Order: sequence, then structure tokens, then C-alpha cells
Amino acid sequence: MKISIAQINTKIGDLDANLAQIKDIVGSHHHNSDIIVFPELTLTGYPPKDLLFHQQFLNDIEQKIEELKHFSTQFPDTAILIGYPKRNNQERGLYNMAGVIQNGKCIFEQAKTLLPNYDVFEETRYFDMSKTQKIWTFKGIKIGLLICEDVWFNNAPTHYSQNPIEATLNAGAELIIAIMASPYEIGKPRRRRNLFKKHAGVYKVPIIYVNQIGANDDLIFDGHSAIISKKGNSVYESVGFDTEVTTHTFPCDDIALKIDDNDIQQLKNALVLGIRDYTQKTGFSKVLIGLSGGIDSAVVTALATEALGKDNVLTITMPSPYSSKGSVDDSKALAANLGIQLNTIPIEGLMSQFETTLIPNLKSPVKDITEQNLQARIRGTLLMAYSNQYGHLVLTTGNKSEMAVGYCTLYGDMNGGLGVIADLTKTQVYQLAALMSDIIPQNIITKAPSAELKPNQKDQDTLPPYDILDAILSLHIENFLEEEDIINLGYDTKTVKWVLKAVHQNEYKRRQAAPALKVSSRTFGTGRRMVISSSNRINP
Amino acid sequence: MKISIAQINTKIGDLDANLAQIKDIVGSHHHNSDIIVFPELTLTGYPPKDLLFHQQFLNDIEQKIEELKHFSTQFPDTAILIGYPKRNNQERGLYNMAGVIQNGKCIFEQAKTLLPNYDVFEETRYFDMSKTQKIWTFKGIKIGLLICEDVWFNNAPTHYSQNPIEATLNAGAELIIAIMASPYEIGKPRRRRNLFKKHAGVYKVPIIYVNQIGANDDLIFDGHSAIISKKGNSVYESVGFDTEVTTHTFPCDDIALKIDDNDIQQLKNALVLGIRDYTQKTGFSKVLIGLSGGIDSAVVTALATEALGKDNVLTITMPSPYSSKGSVDDSKALAANLGIQLNTIPIEGLMSQFETTLIPNLKSPVKDITEQNLQARIRGTLLMAYSNQYGHLVLTTGNKSEMAVGYCTLYGDMNGGLGVIADLTKTQVYQLAALMSDIIPQNIITKAPSAELKPNQKDQDTLPPYDILDAILSLHIENFLEEEDIINLGYDTKTVKWVLKAVHQNEYKRRQAAPALKVSSRTFGTGRRMVISSSNRINP
Repeated sequence: MKISIAQINTKIGDLDANLAQIKDIVGSHHHNSDIIVFPELTLTGYPPKDLLFHQQFLNDIEQKIEELKHFSTQFPDTAILIGYPKRNNQERGLYNMAGVIQNGKCIFEQAKTLLPNYDVFEETRYFDMSKTQKIWTFKGIKIGLLICEDVWFNNAPTHYSQNPIEATLNAGAELIIAIMASPYEIGKPRRRRNLFKKHAGVYKVPIIYVNQIGANDDLIFDGHSAIISKKGNSVYESVGFDTEVTTHTFPCDDIALKIDDNDIQQLKNALVLGIRDYTQKTGFSKVLIGLSGGIDSAVVTALATEALGKDNVLTITMPSPYSSKGSVDDSKALAANLGIQLNTIPIEGLMSQFETTLIPNLKSPVKDITEQNLQARIRGTLLMAYSNQYGHLVLTTGNKSEMAVGYCTLYGDMNGGLGVIADLTKTQVYQLAALMSDIIPQNIITKAPSAELKPNQKDQDTLPPYDILDAILSLHIENFLEEEDIINLGYDTKTVKWVLKAVHQNEYKRRQAAPALKVSSRTFGTGRRMVISSSNRINP
Repeated sequence: MKISIAQINTKIGDLDANLAQIKDIVGSHHHNSDIIVFPELTLTGYPPKDLLFHQQFLNDIEQKIEELKHFSTQFPDTAILIGYPKRNNQERGLYNMAGVIQNGKCIFEQAKTLLPNYDVFEETRYFDMSKTQKIWTFKGIKIGLLICEDVWFNNAPTHYSQNPIEATLNAGAELIIAIMASPYEIGKPRRRRNLFKKHAGVYKVPIIYVNQIGANDDLIFDGHSAIISKKGNSVYESVGFDTEVTTHTFPCDDIALKIDDNDIQQLKNALVLGIRDYTQKTGFSKVLIGLSGGIDSAVVTALATEALGKDNVLTITMPSPYSSKGSVDDSKALAANLGIQLNTIPIEGLMSQFETTLIPNLKSPVKDITEQNLQARIRGTLLMAYSNQYGHLVLTTGNKSEMAVGYCTLYGDMNGGLGVIADLTKTQVYQLAALMSDIIPQNIITKAPSAELKPNQKDQDTLPPYDILDAILSLHIENFLEEEDIINLGYDTKTVKWVLKAVHQNEYKRRQAAPALKVSSRTFGTGRRMVISSSNRINP
């Protein structure tokens, strides 16, 4: 049997374009494919979210499936395996379906059994679970069709009572094909591969899985579709972070690939894809970044230049009287290295004019915090004026460590449409910068981090050292630990209380932040749902 | 049997304070209560969200329940019915539990069966459903304990296969007690009462339900706890939007109350509670509002003054050269009527300074849209400077019609911590203003809406007439209709396309908006989950 893996990049809700991609690939690969496998919810893209509540959307999907059936009559020997939502008469009224279309008919359908509803996932908002696991016999091979979470049954926060792999094997499956929309996190390509290799080995069944690539707002899908032999070897793996269609003979020769993952290189690839897709899918061609001379904006600028090309990245440096000469020079050196345009707009005049305007009205001298935030908001407003003027998308440059404790200004440096590194700790930003040290000036990497909002200011005047801060944040945010647990691990009581209180108090800022490209197991936004007006849970 | 209804206002995650409220009420009402009934998830407040993933939080809850058991030994004749999350060995590991504590023991527990996972609700993210419905026999009465969604079984977007009322009746229940956290929407108090009256009549069973009051971020809980006789009459109903503890003899005399709902008065009460609770629960005492002279900011200011008192509301008017004298005068008249402070800060100097700073850098004349947004952002920045200086919470004044089509400036007039009227259409804002016409100057109510960002600007230069706009928005947002459906209802094709495209294109703004007090069946935010980088689904 010849099987093609179609690792594609769909756009949410764009049924026409997604169907066109399917048709193109079928047209160009039917001659040597018995079956062509596409990712989960191929027609709609993943996640379609509340579009699924629109009956017209569901009608249009049904119509597109009819269109694909008609199209498939041109290639009667090729089966097309795609994913789509399908109406039912159950509680939610929809299944997350995998269906095989061949020669004008839908010849097999299997709905998803396990519906993830943790972290960023909300599938029980939309879908009903399948109650049966059937087998599709094709070219004499008994195939179990599974959908994404079905093959994560023993590796999720939810302790599922079902085991869909076992269910398909009990029904006679000799091969498992899984269609997926499995989002990227740092190290996830390795973890995913290892899990499925383990499944294949334990259950003695080959597994072919097809993942989508591309970014949809905060979620980045990394591809890395693969064929795993029943001995648990990786026989083939698709590229990461790019589209790819490859054809394979099944059963394959059981030759184990040796695959090296470079976590930081993958992280970079993910963010580049995240920037490119958000920009293009929202209809922008160019981006705008405020350059502070610091490492965060330098990393974002380097990533954006890789994603979009040097002619599509405009940077602006907006020095205040507190900006060091070094910062402006470093920004210039970075822009020169990347070959991108840099505008310089000093903000001293605006700072004075704000003070002139405010002082007669405020009954007290302008506070330090007021003045620092004013600088950030003047810069944010200038960036948005450029954005209005030129139609460029502003990228924000805040990292997760800052966003966690609120070391950032709402309506200031938080301005922008996409939080490129908002899910990377400062520690991870340094790791990424090291990978791009040929482009990012050394001085940007080595100097002490500073917001430069007052004379001789350093981040570490306000924040705990970043290694301590990031460790506490990880324990609290990604591992759900509270004050007592973290202190018991040996961290300083005062520091822990300060960090956790800051995380709580700045939930309101994060609520108004741009979507953050997800690279961790728990990203601010839909990955972490907290009530702003709740208790801070810090012991007095 | 003497039953007390304890309609209280809890704070999310504040176990100490919530337990203290329970103890206070038990202490003061035990002498004439056989049972005291508190709302759903009493200990944690509703919704506790991702706090439920913290094991320390669950440990603390268990400890508080032990503390309450110990406390209950002082009043051995009184049963205390509360709600709390309880660990189990199921898929999610938690139940949403109702438990009865008496004389040192938990004498009965019933977990929630139906877990809402639509609109703003996410209960299947956290909880497992109960598989059984047991009966609690107390003082010779067989009681079925239900929890909120359990009594909405036939009135939800999810078509539940279970009917918990029937299940309790089959198990022998003679009385249903439901503990609830049922959020407010316009008209919901009536719809809730009518549904439960219908249940009582159909199933011939008396129903006592206890709802929480208070606001937690975007959700406002209105109380209106009640006793419904088995004939389906309202025998007693608690006040709306306030705490109340009342005691009743069961069975009650079946005297039907006549209850008049005033939807707009309830809406006003809801928003006042929403402002007060968000402000106080986040630790603020004073609020700050930018007064434009328009109806939106006037309504928000009047509501805030009622919520917090005139000494806790500071207003600022920030006229530009495009502001009419009428607008400044109207703002002064409003502030005088309310007895609140009004500061005036002209922004002409800042507008000039921004142009002086920008023009040498921009290669084109400053565009209209750039200049209009600059004004809004200067005002937003001045408000935030005041907020930094004085520690006041900024309230935003945008309405749902504007937010829907993006007729608002991100990082400008959208600045602020709470969207007071962000879920009210412009039409509803006028209805609310009419109710407060003794306070809001007539001129504010009657003049044509204008953003006053350029000479002689009127909203209707850009937007469809508000009655048309609001009707299309309601069909699209609350009724999930798309282009074709709405046009088929008779609306102008071009207008429908314009509105739906604008709604889609401005999702990015709403993503960064302050939480909006929920008053409709579908509120921007967690009530409507859309992907920004998706297709706009408008036919070309």
C-alpha cells in the first residue's frame, strides 16, 4: 500500500482555501498514492473555536465535503483521509470526525473518542465523544483511525478511562493512522515521538501520524509527522515547521532513523513560523518593532527578519534622557547587521510636554512610577502612530518573566498585536540570543538588563536574579505550586511571597496583553485562567 | 422544618473570609434554623477557575471543611449545606460537591451531575460528573440536592441526556434544594424564576434555590434566591443584587407572590454591583473616568457614583480643538449633578508636540486615522498617569456596538481595568440613560453621538444607524448567524457585509480589552472565542 503524508498549513475557517490545498495535493499525488492522509480538522483548520456554533459554517462544511466527493471521482483509486466537524444528535451536536473519501463516496468515518479540555484545549465545548472504535479495512489491511488526543490517552492531565489504541487493537487493527493537530512546546517534538514509539513497541502496532503545521494566533503546530514501526522505531519523520508531502510504501523497511532534536533551534523555528503565519494570516506584510537596545527587542527583531525578510521589518528607537548612548548604538549595530531600517525618534520633547500638561493638574510632584510609565506609553503611542500611518503590525517584545510579575507597562511597551517571546522566560531569551550571536551584537547579550526609565536603573534593582525568578515562576505557573510548597523546596520566603504576589497582582495586565506564542506547557492566556478579583492566596 | 436561605457574596479563593461568612451566619441563625443553605462552591466562590489545579488550594479546602465540622459541634441541631470542590479518583479528579455538615460530621454529599461547558462556563475543565443521584432524608423529609446546571437540564445549549430532577424524584425526593451560582443577564431573573416555576409545576415538587450574589470580574451574580411551591408558585424570593439571610418554615403556605421585574432597573443594579465588587475585590477604593461629554461616559460615571459614592469618583475631561463647547459644558453639568470632582486638561499642546515629533520622521502627512487615534491615546495616557499618581482604577466607557465594529482606539479610550457597559449595545445605553435622566443632563441624551476627533464628526458618518447596527450585531453575535442568514432576513447586503467584516477585523482589539461586565447571552471575552488569524467568512 502506498500512503502519502500531507503535512499542510490550513487557515481557520477558510474552507475554500483549505479544500483547494487538499485538491491540489490529491491532484499531484494520486498517481502513486493509495491513500493520502491530512491532519485533524483539515477542512476547518484547528482550532475552529466558536465558528462551530454557526450553522452556516456547518452547512458550508457539508457542501465542501460534497464537492470533495465529486472531485474524488477523477481519481477513483485514491482514498482521501481528512478531518472535519460532523453534526450528530448527541449532547453537543458535533463530532470531531476523521473520514475517508474515495470515488464519490465517504467510505469510512471514525469520530474522536478523547476530547482534550485542559490547558488551551476546549474540545468538550464543541464535540461529543465517540462511543465506538471501528476498523477500516483497506487493501486488505485493517486500519484503526485515531484522532490526536486518542493517542495521548495515558499522557494527559485528564486520567482517561478509555484506551483508544487498545480498543482498535481489540477490534483487529494491524495499523494505526492518527490525524493530529498537536501544538508545539519546547521539547514537544521529542516527547511526542518518544510517546508514540513507546505505544508502537508496547502494542506491537505500526503507527502513522500526520500533524498540521502553521500558527493560528497563539498556537504553533510543528508538523514532525511520522511513521513508527511496530518495533517502535522511527522509520520516517517529516520536517518540522514546514509543509511537506511524502509518499511511503507500507509496510516500510524497519530501519530506525536517528533523530537529533535541538530544542533551542526548534524554538527559534517555531517563533519564526509563529510570526510569519500571524502576520500573513491577518493580512499584514510588514511589522514594526520598538528597539530599546536590550536583548528582548533584539531577539524579536532578528526572528522577525528571518520570518519576513529584511524589507518587511521596520524598527524605531525612541531614546529618552535616561537611555544610554550604548543602547542607541547597539540598536544601530543590530539594524545594520540585519540590514533593516531603523528610525530614531527622541521622546524628550513629549516627556516635557506631558509634564507641562500634567503638573498644574496633579496636586503632588510627578511620581517615579508615573514618569516611568509615561515614557513607555509615549513610545507605545508613537509605535501605534506609525502603525496607523503605514499599516504595519506592531510586535511586542516582552518576555514571560516580565509579564509574570508585571515588569512592563500596560498601554506602553505591551502595545502590539503579537507577543513573540511572551512565553519565554528571560533565561530562554538568553539561550535563543546565543543561537543568534552572529547577528545580535555581543554587547546586547552581555550587558545587564535595564528598562532605562530612570538613571542607572537595572532590572535587578527591582526583580530577584532572573535564575531565581524564573525557577519560582516555573514552579508556580507550570507546576501549580503555591507559596508553602515553593518555600519548602528551599527558596527564600520573602522572595517567594514577592513573586507570587506580583504574579497575582498583574493578572489584569496580562488579561489585556497581545496573544503570546505558546512554547511552554502553560502559557498566559487561555492556558492559565485566573480570576483577577480573587484572593492572592499569600499567607500574611 | 425551619430552613434559612443564605444568599451571600464570596470572594474567589479567599477561603478564610468565605468560611468566616458561613460561621457568622450559622452563629446568628442557628437558633431558628434546622438547615442553613449557602450557594454553590461556597468555600471557594464561583468560578474558582485554575486555582482548582493547585493541590495546596485543595488541601486548604479540606482543612477548612474540617474547621467547619469542628465549629458545627457548637450548634448540633443545625445542618449547614455548602458547596465545595472535592477530590475523587475520576478522570478530572474533582467533583463540584454539595455537602451537609452537622455536629462535627459531613452527613450527606451529592456531586453535580450536569457540568456546563458553554458560553462562559468551563466546568468540564475541572470537574467530573456525578453518576448517581441520592436522597437525603432530614427531619422526615426526603430531599433531592441539586447544583445549578442540574436544574437547567432542558434549558441549555447542551442537550443533556440526563434529567437530574426526574432522577431525584425517582429516588423519592419530596423537596428539591438547589445551590447555585447563576450569573446575571438582562431578563435572566424572570427567565430563571419561570423555568423553576415550570419545573415545580410539571414535577409537582417544591424547589428551594439559593444563588450567590456579587461580581467576580466579568460575571455578576444577582441572587434572587427563591422558594417555589409544588403548584409552581413563587412563595418567597430574596432581593436581587444584595446579600440576604431569611428563614422560612417548610412546607410554606402556598401564597403566590406577584413579582414585577423591571429589566432596565435590574440592569442598572447589576452594573452598580459589578463596579463596586470589582473595585473592592481588587483592593481599590476610588475610580477614574474620562468624560467626553457623550452618553457612554455619562452613564458609566452615574453608575460608578451610585456604586462607590461621590467622593470616590474622579472625572477628567480632556478637550481637543475638535471638542465642542457643549461637550465640556455637558461634562461640567453632569459632574455638578453628581457632586463629583472634574478636572479639565486640554490636550492641544500634546497633539502639537506629537505632530512635531512625528512629522520629520513620517514620510507622508499625518493621516486622519493616525491623528484621531493620537487624540484617544493622549487621553488614555493622561488617565493612566492619574491612575499611577493616585492609585485610582480607570473605568472604560466603550459600549458593545463600538467594541463589536472597532469604533474605539486600542491603548486609547479602551484603557482601563473594567468595561462597565462593554456588553450593552448603544440602544441599551440609551435605555439606561433614560432611567437616570434626573442626573444625566438632557443634552447628553439628545445630541447626536460623536467621537469629536475631527470637525463636525458624527458616529453615523462611519457607522450604520445604531438600530440597524445593533440588530445585525445581535443576530451575528448572540444568534450565531452569518452573512447569508442575515441578508435573508431583509437587511441590506452592503451593510451586513460591512458590519460582519468589521466584527471580524476587530477581534484583535477586543482580545486586549478590559473584562466586560456580562449582561447579554454572549459577551465578548470568554463568552465568544474566536481566532484572530482566521478567515472573515464574508463572501467576496
